[in-house]
Amino acid sequence: MSYDPDNIFAKILSGDFPAHKVYEDDVAIAILDIMPQAAGHTLVIPKAASRNLLDADANDLAQMMPTVQKIAHAVKTAFAADGVHLQQFNEAAAGQTVFHLHFHVIPRHDGVAVKPHSGDMEDQDVLVAHAEKIKAALAKT
Amino acid sequence: MSYDPDNIFAKILSGDFPAHKVYEDDVAIAILDIMPQAAGHTLVIPKAASRNLLDADANDLAQMMPTVQKIAHAVKTAFAADGVHLQQFNEAAAGQTVFHLHFHVIPRHDGVAVKPHSGDMEDQDVLVAHAEKIKAALAKT
Repeated sequence: MSYDPDNIFAKILSGDFPAHKVYEDDVAIAILDIMPQAAGHTLVIPKAASRNLLDADANDLAQMMPTVQKIAHAVKTAFAADGVHLQQFNEAAAGQTVFHLHFHVIPRHDGVAVKPHSGDMEDQDVLVAHAEKIKAALAKT
Repeated sequence: MSYDPDNIFAKILSGDFPAHKVYEDDVAIAILDIMPQAAGHTLVIPKAASRNLLDADANDLAQMMPTVQKIAHAVKTAFAADGVHLQQFNEAAAGQTVFHLHFHVIPRHDGVAVKPHSGDMEDQDVLVAHAEKIKAALAKT
């Protein structure tokens, strides 16, 4: 299956759709998931266009991983998390809902279960506050 | 927390413990998960030592991703899957059970749920057959 340039993450990358952006570098942006599985659930989205991991350029994929790592550290610090869960879905059968490659970075706390993927929409003011916490953690690195 | 060189994946990497290995290159090996969440559930384990994503060398992390991508394609082909789910757990709070960085690569079929992480042990003969399917798919690439 081919890449659809009208997907919502392409529109966020081009600035045509708003998002709670917490980070941007040469290869990727990081935004809050608006249906977080836990507080601080962040998505790392490469600027290079691909549907998912399967059709990504291998070099583009490699280049975005240090950004994924940076965001993992930031959300762990921002939410005083005990661990971090990384997820990446390829095609609808695996749970993919937006067809532009992205990694889910989810802070985890001991004994606290995550909410379902694509569950309830979080309040905007909560997302704004969470984005500020992550940006503050990133500013210290 | 620091890296424990006696972890089971370090022993598999050094050849001191057996595994259903399906692939090896300069940066990583791929082995079957013996408690698969779905048939063909494979682990990509970098040769470079780190506890998980959080303490990994950023360059080592980047270098292993083309191998993860290669294995994702192979398990999708081998099991005629509709999608592929990538997971990576950091620290016990996130579900990590072996403390050497690894990526879970899980073939997914439409409408078929995965089994729990670290669930039932699969029969050895089933694992042998699944490993052969993945190796055959890799041999065609």
